[in-house]
Amino acid sequence: MACCRSCLCCQCCCRDTETRTPEELTILGETREEEDEILPRKDYESLDYDRCINETYMDALEGMDNKRAKKYEVVKWMLVFAIGVSIGLVGLFVDFFVRLFTQLKFSVVGNSVEECTEKGCLALSLLELLAFNMTFILIASVLVLVEPVAAGSGIPEIKSYLNGVKVPGIVRLRTFVCKVVGVLFAVAGGLFVGKEGPMIHSGAIIGAGLPQFQSITFKKIQFYFPYFRSDRDKRDFVSAGAAAGVAAAFGAPIGGTLFSLEEGSSFWNQALTWKVLFCSMSATFTLNFFRSGINYNKWGSFQLPGLLNFGEFKCSDGDKACHLWTVVDLAFFVLMGIVGGLLGALFNCINKRLAKYRMKNVHPKARVIRVLESLLVSMVTTVVIFVASMTLGECRDLSPATTHNSTEAVNVDVNSTIRQFFCSNKSYNDMATLFFNPQEVAIHQLFHQDATFSPVTLSIFFVLYFLLACWTYGVSVPSGLFVPSLLCGASLGRLVANVLKTNLGMQIYPGTFALIGAAAFLGGVVRMTISLTVILIESTNEITYGLPIMITLMVAKWTGDFFNKGIYDIHILLKGVPLLEWETEVEMDKLTASDIMDPNLTYVYPHTRVQSLVSILRTTVYHAFPVVTENRDNEREFMKGNILISNNIRFKKMSVLTRAGEQRRRCQSMKSYPSSELRNVCDDQVPVEPTEEGQDILQQMLERRHIPYPNLYPDQSPSEDWTMEERFRPLTFHGLILRSQLVTLLIRGVCYAENQSSATQPRLSYAEMTEDYPRFPDIHDLDLALLNPRMIVDATPYMNPSPYTVSPNTHVSQVFNLFRTMGLRHLPVVNAVGEIVGIITRHNLTHEYLLAKLRQHYITI
Amino acid sequence: MACCRSCLCCQCCCRDTETRTPEELTILGETREEEDEILPRKDYESLDYDRCINETYMDALEGMDNKRAKKYEVVKWMLVFAIGVSIGLVGLFVDFFVRLFTQLKFSVVGNSVEECTEKGCLALSLLELLAFNMTFILIASVLVLVEPVAAGSGIPEIKSYLNGVKVPGIVRLRTFVCKVVGVLFAVAGGLFVGKEGPMIHSGAIIGAGLPQFQSITFKKIQFYFPYFRSDRDKRDFVSAGAAAGVAAAFGAPIGGTLFSLEEGSSFWNQALTWKVLFCSMSATFTLNFFRSGINYNKWGSFQLPGLLNFGEFKCSDGDKACHLWTVVDLAFFVLMGIVGGLLGALFNCINKRLAKYRMKNVHPKARVIRVLESLLVSMVTTVVIFVASMTLGECRDLSPATTHNSTEAVNVDVNSTIRQFFCSNKSYNDMATLFFNPQEVAIHQLFHQDATFSPVTLSIFFVLYFLLACWTYGVSVPSGLFVPSLLCGASLGRLVANVLKTNLGMQIYPGTFALIGAAAFLGGVVRMTISLTVILIESTNEITYGLPIMITLMVAKWTGDFFNKGIYDIHILLKGVPLLEWETEVEMDKLTASDIMDPNLTYVYPHTRVQSLVSILRTTVYHAFPVVTENRDNEREFMKGNILISNNIRFKKMSVLTRAGEQRRRCQSMKSYPSSELRNVCDDQVPVEPTEEGQDILQQMLERRHIPYPNLYPDQSPSEDWTMEERFRPLTFHGLILRSQLVTLLIRGVCYAENQSSATQPRLSYAEMTEDYPRFPDIHDLDLALLNPRMIVDATPYMNPSPYTVSPNTHVSQVFNLFRTMGLRHLPVVNAVGEIVGIITRHNLTHEYLLAKLRQHYITI
Repeated sequence: MACCRSCLCCQCCCRDTETRTPEELTILGETREEEDEILPRKDYESLDYDRCINETYMDALEGMDNKRAKKYEVVKWMLVFAIGVSIGLVGLFVDFFVRLFTQLKFSVVGNSVEECTEKGCLALSLLELLAFNMTFILIASVLVLVEPVAAGSGIPEIKSYLNGVKVPGIVRLRTFVCKVVGVLFAVAGGLFVGKEGPMIHSGAIIGAGLPQFQSITFKKIQFYFPYFRSDRDKRDFVSAGAAAGVAAAFGAPIGGTLFSLEEGSSFWNQALTWKVLFCSMSATFTLNFFRSGINYNKWGSFQLPGLLNFGEFKCSDGDKACHLWTVVDLAFFVLMGIVGGLLGALFNCINKRLAKYRMKNVHPKARVIRVLESLLVSMVTTVVIFVASMTLGECRDLSPATTHNSTEAVNVDVNSTIRQFFCSNKSYNDMATLFFNPQEVAIHQLFHQDATFSPVTLSIFFVLYFLLACWTYGVSVPSGLFVPSLLCGASLGRLVANVLKTNLGMQIYPGTFALIGAAAFLGGVVRMTISLTVILIESTNEITYGLPIMITLMVAKWTGDFFNKGIYDIHILLKGVPLLEWETEVEMDKLTASDIMDPNLTYVYPHTRVQSLVSILRTTVYHAFPVVTENRDNEREFMKGNILISNNIRFKKMSVLTRAGEQRRRCQSMKSYPSSELRNVCDDQVPVEPTEEGQDILQQMLERRHIPYPNLYPDQSPSEDWTMEERFRPLTFHGLILRSQLVTLLIRGVCYAENQSSATQPRLSYAEMTEDYPRFPDIHDLDLALLNPRMIVDATPYMNPSPYTVSPNTHVSQVFNLFRTMGLRHLPVVNAVGEIVGIITRHNLTHEYLLAKLRQHYITI
Repeated sequence: MACCRSCLCCQCCCRDTETRTPEELTILGETREEEDEILPRKDYESLDYDRCINETYMDALEGMDNKRAKKYEVVKWMLVFAIGVSIGLVGLFVDFFVRLFTQLKFSVVGNSVEECTEKGCLALSLLELLAFNMTFILIASVLVLVEPVAAGSGIPEIKSYLNGVKVPGIVRLRTFVCKVVGVLFAVAGGLFVGKEGPMIHSGAIIGAGLPQFQSITFKKIQFYFPYFRSDRDKRDFVSAGAAAGVAAAFGAPIGGTLFSLEEGSSFWNQALTWKVLFCSMSATFTLNFFRSGINYNKWGSFQLPGLLNFGEFKCSDGDKACHLWTVVDLAFFVLMGIVGGLLGALFNCINKRLAKYRMKNVHPKARVIRVLESLLVSMVTTVVIFVASMTLGECRDLSPATTHNSTEAVNVDVNSTIRQFFCSNKSYNDMATLFFNPQEVAIHQLFHQDATFSPVTLSIFFVLYFLLACWTYGVSVPSGLFVPSLLCGASLGRLVANVLKTNLGMQIYPGTFALIGAAAFLGGVVRMTISLTVILIESTNEITYGLPIMITLMVAKWTGDFFNKGIYDIHILLKGVPLLEWETEVEMDKLTASDIMDPNLTYVYPHTRVQSLVSILRTTVYHAFPVVTENRDNEREFMKGNILISNNIRFKKMSVLTRAGEQRRRCQSMKSYPSSELRNVCDDQVPVEPTEEGQDILQQMLERRHIPYPNLYPDQSPSEDWTMEERFRPLTFHGLILRSQLVTLLIRGVCYAENQSSATQPRLSYAEMTEDYPRFPDIHDLDLALLNPRMIVDATPYMNPSPYTVSPNTHVSQVFNLFRTMGLRHLPVVNAVGEIVGIITRHNLTHEYLLAKLRQHYITI
């Protein structure tokens, strides 16, 4: 039934209808949000994870020896430890207050219900509960108003960040405060949300912020850290922080590490991974240390797992026939995986529709509308759980059999959390037990209470929970999805277990089925694989569950992927983030770099006038500019008259390393060492003067091109009547310079006068160049009156002289692999004779763009 | 004391004495094994993990759509599953026979000892034991004679393989058989060796062999798999196999996955990792399924962990004050980590000296000497354990207190393995209990027996075991190092626990200390980090041990790294394998690609005569050749007379994509689509004829060089009197072709006659090109009589037209990163105008080479 609904729904709403016409393909870059389909937006900035090793960096490196490098390494370890501890403390803070508020709420309302059951004033109890919940949600919702990116789980945003897309405001301190306090109230307010996603986001913010904080606020603390001022280092700390967030939330340090690898990093760096694992461990154990101390007064002991605790799965000692699972159960697990995948796909499908509806009808309106929506969800949720508990619960006997699983090691005594609402003294209300408890407790109940939930209750619970959770995810409060999904799935798994055990009389362990149900549904919703497997294994602290959990997740993912994407990917898509997948499809290899590159270049010369730079920077939005020289004849004549042109030509001349030149250099440095083979080569060549050889190269270059010499500054005179040959004339590629670097050079007045040598230009250090990271000044902040437009900027010490490049006939899979693995932002395409012919950015590698290009390719051939 | 010895020893033997002179630097490539220092040897072949996307690959891709790609994916999953199951079965096989032989041996000898203690015929018992052990070791040793690479643990070899170095014979079926059977007898023969390393090696062989096997032996099974015939795919399967080996050996599927990531892969591929994890899980559970069935007759249950079982660490229920570990213990763990690191360094140091001694004095002699050495080790070991048990053991009371930890869940009942040798009925011999049991049982004893080993016994045991294990590793039998290290460390940890508990009266859990001791020593020896942490966590099945294990391993690694490298790295170094580290040191960035490249190139032209190819291939040993064209003037004249030269010039002309050409192409394919911006550009250019533009490029190239036109075949006329300009004249780089590809082309007669067009050349398919993988024919197998030396080979469809390249001024860290991450074998260095100036291979990036170059750099400036 559920399966069938899911199929129908997904065919109509989730499968992209592929109806783009060739005309549309050419404008794929434009967003067309009015339609059903949302294409990657071009206005997201990318992050640059490639290290720019230019001359200033080399200057900074001058003083760096291995001892200094070690010191720097030690500081990195300390920072990672500090991040871990902080995240542990944040987890503690959230946990403590959620516990406090929840206990307060449930004790007040619980007492009121018990009183009112006799007096008949249940409406009053409902009002009390409503007052509590709606107040909490109001606070959470107002906090999100302050910082809108604090809404939701934050995992899509962190995933985007680690993938290399800058989502504005995502790692700010304000976001952090709103998220942490917001999620606390959202969870305490009884919404069907978890605190795990927001914990991960908070962890990432701490990771991004802590190492930066030291260098911005306390300027007196002087570490020698040119590195922490780059996207690359920040990403490493964000990885660590996100992993520690998972570790604190689930008590799963290894799972957290794998999470940050799976979601983020594209390349495996042993040293980084080791730090990430350490950070996760620190977070887990900080949290445990304080929780053991505060909650159980066992200071110095570390035996509590993370915030989410699945309890201990264990057969009672006496029961010889009991097995946690057998090979026969595996077949059921596979079936449950399929069902979980289908239900997850349905969940995602409904949620996608809701999100789209919200984007069209809620977001454009006043922000207060969002608060009202949150309050509406809160109200409906509260009423539903109250009414459901009152009318649909079943009173079941409080048999002594229910206690045999509770060991004192687990932190919640199962029996103490049973709710007797509306039931006689010797029995309890099963629906209320699930609804009137924190979600973690309810999961615990489903995993470890033996045979105490009626199938009807479980079914109703599942349906209500499914729909409400689906509605809730996307409301503007900080909201995780893990715990609701687990609870939802656990109720389903428990239902299966009840049917198998009671109706078919099979010898099974119900807790295992509840766990597998939880895994199946969660897997169906989020479609994570490796990390989720490990997180669940670590949360259960039972390695033997590895295989069943893995198989279930695998089946759930495959089933779900048949219909739509994971919920996080859906939300990333809805935001139009140009995310890069893991790899391209095999078919895409029919395209080459020249097919997908952007051939329209805005470039600068090694030596450029200030006026040209300013006009380029003010009239374009590109973030990087290739540094090029032109290939033309009679260069020598130009060299005589014009210092600018002659400097450019001289730079080109110098920067081309020939085989002969390299051989001569080697010979000279080898001269002092006897080496039979080499000496022969060198001795041969003594008569040839280096200058002469230089002349030779110059000569060779001078005679390469025959087209007339156009204006060196295409920006100043775009000359509509240029021929294409002129507009697309050959340009030798020398390096890449970032907008931020050019603006910094201009603002700091780095330039030289026409009648001086370029050596007179002031030299900025690496630290000065990166001082303003991550918020570099804007070109429009520049006061033009302070600049002499005729001055010349020598960009060569500041450009990246050796970015990775590809040849035009490189196939897409190879381009993609390089771009993704190295975390690039711009990839110049350079032909066989060293001329730049185009540039590839993230946008040229998104799945949608490649697909459009592939179709175009098929049409053309 | 131990610490002090270690320091002294290491200063004299393990710190490299840095005394290379500049003269030596120039010949760094040569091995100088007569000296203490061993440099990377140049005769190891590298593996090529980069995908070569050439025209034949594209032909093969033609029929590939997404459906086919899915099918291929499914087959890959099935193969991975098959690999996992096979490895599980191999583990079962080894375990079963080791168990059988060991039980046989110990029961016979045990009975004899008990009889002889009364009768006084202990010498007879010793002889019996000697006979057993030496027979087993003889078999193991003879098997290693058959296939010498089966000796040792195999981890260094697998690490080298995954790093990209081909160690001959390492993944052969013969190696597999020798390894599996050999390790079985080595372990049963009572040597201090483990079966874990060999299990990992066996797993890797299965991974490498299974997917190949299907296509070689059973030719009728027709999958469409052009991919499995490449180093890249093989590596993926080897990763999976090695991971499954770890998983089977330790019951640690996640640890296995991380092992293969840590030791092997340089880049994180989600899909691959997921497959590796699945493979590991399959192996673990196959093993568990059969072991549960065979050993305990519980078919269908999966509750046994891997071959190595640490038992359950658990406080007894009644003991409220008992904690597995507290924050105070952490301080001791750090100290133990330091001691472990020191002892590990000492172990490695002694073992390195031994290995060097063996290389000098044992290996050059007849192979039988190695067998004799194995027998000697076996004899000494046997005598030592017998005499130690007889004379040094202490009789201790068999108190009932010792039993309270043994739960029936663990597979070895602790008490049943106690040995009473030479002791009265109510007591037992503690030394014999450790020595006269399989090592896994002894570890179990140390972890879980309460206070039953005297400190003296533990100390003696540790020293004896340390020395013997150190001697044993390197003897020519298959021998793992994990279990001996764990046992050695556990005895030390247990000693610490005894001292703390008995002498200082601290409230500690002795098992934890034994575990931490084991971790510390193992960490000090092997210096693995992430994977070892996870393996130990998984083996103990106790997530709360995460932090202490991690901290101990970290401290042990840091302490040990202060003195020397891990044992596996030492053995890799001794073999002279050019292993690439994770990253270069920061200082190395002072070097650029042009400093480290090899500027002496042997190259081919796009169209080359057969005679030239043959002479190049026969006179050089390079594995890849750049495909280049020359830059010279009056090319047009040459084109008229010589088909060969004109074909080459034409190829160059065609292969240079210019911006204008690209723009025109785009315009033409865009013509049909209305697009305002683009049309303008295109319409401008209609009058310019493409042919004219082609002429233009040709013209431009023709006029670039002024040097005389030398012979196109430098190999034929090496012309000693060439000037350096001629020898190192500019060459435009077009692609890279492998030796194997050239030889295949020649053998299959792919060429065309001078008076024909190159289109008449027969075309080989991708499958035909890769058919002979991995053993391609040799150039010397070629029958020259069958070839017309005047024929011309068009290599362009078979070369890799777009390998990754770097510019000469790229810094070393970036070059290294690209090379390592992409798993390259050859990295051409191409200057700003597209001319190849050198080539970088693995040898140019080894630590030793870089260090030598750096010193040279310092001397030069």
